[in-house]
Amino acid sequence: MQMPEPNAKILALKPVLVKRLLQVLPAVAVIHEEAETRAYECDALTAYRCPPLVAVLPANTNEVSAVLSICHELGVPVVPRGSGTSLAGGALPTADCVILGVSRMNEVLETDYDNRFIKVQSGRTNLSVTGAVEEEDFFYAPDPSSQLACAIAGNVAMNSGGAHCLKYGVTTNNLMGVTMVLMDGAVVELGGAHLDAGGIDLLGVICGSEGQLGVVTEATLRILHKPEGARPVLMGFDSNEVAGECVSEIIQAGLLPVAIEFMDRPCIRATEAFAGAGYPDCEALLIVEVEGSEGEIEEQLEKILAIARSHNPVELRESTSAEESARIWLGRKSAFGAMGQINDYMCLDGTIPVNQLPYVLRRIGEMSKQYGLGVGNVFHAGDGNMHPLILFDANKPGDLELCERFGADILKLCVEVGGCLTGEHGVGIEKRDLMVDQFDPDDLDIQMAVKDAFDPAWLLNPAKVFPLAASERRRIAAE
Amino acid sequence: MQMPEPNAKILALKPVLVKRLLQVLPAVAVIHEEAETRAYECDALTAYRCPPLVAVLPANTNEVSAVLSICHELGVPVVPRGSGTSLAGGALPTADCVILGVSRMNEVLETDYDNRFIKVQSGRTNLSVTGAVEEEDFFYAPDPSSQLACAIAGNVAMNSGGAHCLKYGVTTNNLMGVTMVLMDGAVVELGGAHLDAGGIDLLGVICGSEGQLGVVTEATLRILHKPEGARPVLMGFDSNEVAGECVSEIIQAGLLPVAIEFMDRPCIRATEAFAGAGYPDCEALLIVEVEGSEGEIEEQLEKILAIARSHNPVELRESTSAEESARIWLGRKSAFGAMGQINDYMCLDGTIPVNQLPYVLRRIGEMSKQYGLGVGNVFHAGDGNMHPLILFDANKPGDLELCERFGADILKLCVEVGGCLTGEHGVGIEKRDLMVDQFDPDDLDIQMAVKDAFDPAWLLNPAKVFPLAASERRRIAAE
Repeated sequence: MQMPEPNAKILALKPVLVKRLLQVLPAVAVIHEEAETRAYECDALTAYRCPPLVAVLPANTNEVSAVLSICHELGVPVVPRGSGTSLAGGALPTADCVILGVSRMNEVLETDYDNRFIKVQSGRTNLSVTGAVEEEDFFYAPDPSSQLACAIAGNVAMNSGGAHCLKYGVTTNNLMGVTMVLMDGAVVELGGAHLDAGGIDLLGVICGSEGQLGVVTEATLRILHKPEGARPVLMGFDSNEVAGECVSEIIQAGLLPVAIEFMDRPCIRATEAFAGAGYPDCEALLIVEVEGSEGEIEEQLEKILAIARSHNPVELRESTSAEESARIWLGRKSAFGAMGQINDYMCLDGTIPVNQLPYVLRRIGEMSKQYGLGVGNVFHAGDGNMHPLILFDANKPGDLELCERFGADILKLCVEVGGCLTGEHGVGIEKRDLMVDQFDPDDLDIQMAVKDAFDPAWLLNPAKVFPLAASERRRIAAE
Repeated sequence: MQMPEPNAKILALKPVLVKRLLQVLPAVAVIHEEAETRAYECDALTAYRCPPLVAVLPANTNEVSAVLSICHELGVPVVPRGSGTSLAGGALPTADCVILGVSRMNEVLETDYDNRFIKVQSGRTNLSVTGAVEEEDFFYAPDPSSQLACAIAGNVAMNSGGAHCLKYGVTTNNLMGVTMVLMDGAVVELGGAHLDAGGIDLLGVICGSEGQLGVVTEATLRILHKPEGARPVLMGFDSNEVAGECVSEIIQAGLLPVAIEFMDRPCIRATEAFAGAGYPDCEALLIVEVEGSEGEIEEQLEKILAIARSHNPVELRESTSAEESARIWLGRKSAFGAMGQINDYMCLDGTIPVNQLPYVLRRIGEMSKQYGLGVGNVFHAGDGNMHPLILFDANKPGDLELCERFGADILKLCVEVGGCLTGEHGVGIEKRDLMVDQFDPDDLDIQMAVKDAFDPAWLLNPAKVFPLAASERRRIAAE
């Protein structure tokens, strides 16, 4: 991926910039020595690295506002960063940018069980939001795989999902309000602890905007009462198509399991070798989990098992204990690590209509042969959110580029069948040039016009989300 | 409510405008005789009336695009109109505008049960969306009281809710994508039949934008499998506070009835006299409905009835038959009509955190005495969406103005306790000048900047949503 040349004028501003930042932040929060800025050179898309000019770690909304005012005045680009777990390069620095990290902003500001919300600073990690309310038997629903590390700020920026989002929705369905600082330092409140918002509802446009519109510093999140219990069922099938049809039928029957996870043979084998979860050796495996009281669980499972049986499963195992449930999930949760043990891989993220699963899986298999690169599939099947893992050799010249071309073809296929370039990882730098495959020029123009409204100088999170040529044109025009 | 003076230059353009419109629409779809334009002079906020310059009834996206291109070129304001059921004056014409009605656009374009969506033209009525899928046992969830008449276009514009939205969410939670025409005639696609949207997600900002940003011509809607059954319980209490506490406790326990409706004594009495639903004569009444299989219904009701009993109800009646269920709901559904039989009334719409219900009901009672105007309360208590009905005499000089001041005070109270000016009716002209009580100047500025991005000349749905002085300033600056 090409990144724009750093602006020499901005590089030359570094001494002034650092001096100004030290007037509004404590010294420990302004990182400007080259050796130390390296800690911020990449996110989880580690193939791309570039140390920022400066990194800052403000502690609250006022400090974020002060930092943005200075950068706005000096014309310095700003890359907001949660915990740096983006798989799409959403927090990748440019050499002439200030990285604005929210990791010191992790306080709980308010907990209200009557009205079922929690207000936190945006640097708080996803799992520790649940941690703050679980004594009262509440939880925060979206559960990205990186939930131990990832920040709410990043979850809001990427509209993150997770295995349990089939039932509970993704971040946008659980976000009630944010405090956000605009590039010029203005502080705005969007949404709140109530149902609707008067006027233009900007909360939806902020969620998933990948740091293009402002820096979210506080978030009001919906919390839910924990279900009484949950139980997974493991299903094995002798073809991807049949497993895909089973998923379609469960959804079509109006059943709402809390999760439907899918793994194909390459992933099953790698996972079994790595984690020994007791998975059967078959073509495709589903983990279907339901929640509720004992009565609700039994009633839902009865219907789900009947659908599964009608598809001649080679394995159908209902968990009978907490240990067995943990073991079933252990395999799924180890899948990415297991694949990483045997190969370098690139994890894709696209969304398709659920009934296209069998067709898309077959086409990916065909493309895998054409490109000569292996693929494993492990993903949230219930909501059509695919995560093909393309295997390649990082030390073999040309393999990464081949892998990227293969990945682009898979994402174009997702768009072709009525789906979307991204499910929960976002566009970042990874998919910015594929946006033209999803959107017509008029669609992209109006997206960029909204960016203009929030960030007229195009200083926030440069070179992401929009096709590089288009965003550079806008940025230069704004100078 | 003050409306801006019509622009004499635009009035003078009428012959040219009509000629141009007749070039792109059949004659029957261009209404320009003064006697006929009167049919479009108001919506359901009937206190305000003004015939438009012209009304047009395009049949598809291309015709809408052609109309908007012409109006854009000539600088003529456009007021989009669904079925004209807005209670907030959201479709009120100005004398120099073109009313763009979508009533001829009511086709079903696609039905997909596997992926659970339906795509319709935006003029289709809410209830007929369910009508198109109920043979297959599906339904469209949001159910505004006006669902027999109101159009999906209006539902999207106002982010409409309804009695059953406690469980299923409001329009924004059930809207997957739209086709929208911008003021300059460009056609954009936002969202679609998939989970996420790449780039800036504009679907959320469109939903609830009250015709300020574009004209939605097609919508892709989530459809759901019908529940196996449903059962309401009628609960009577001897104080509003206790009924409010009961609602809070049901929600706090993590139970999710499909509806929790609340009526106070004035409404109960008027309704009982009108509909004879067999309601008890008490201070406050709740209708709590649960859905699911017989087992699920019983399990949920057991917990809900236990909570109700702990609040010493004066009545607790579980429906035992379909007839009894219909009778319980008949009362609730007749409440607005029943109040209208005894008095003129103004129906307000605000949202509050659920645990503020007892306090807000008490304060409304106190204000009622101060203003000397009666109030009835009938509303969606589960999600804190209040609908106070202020009683007044339309023939008594000054009473409407007094009523409006009282209404404004109630809505300010909603904001004070952490709620919002609107729940499902929108801002329209009714609440535009209260927006400054909800939002800081920076908050309003960024909302208006987004409006600028979509509609730089401020031609769409003038004099609504934003404080009149502020929107007039922007409009004149854009000329």
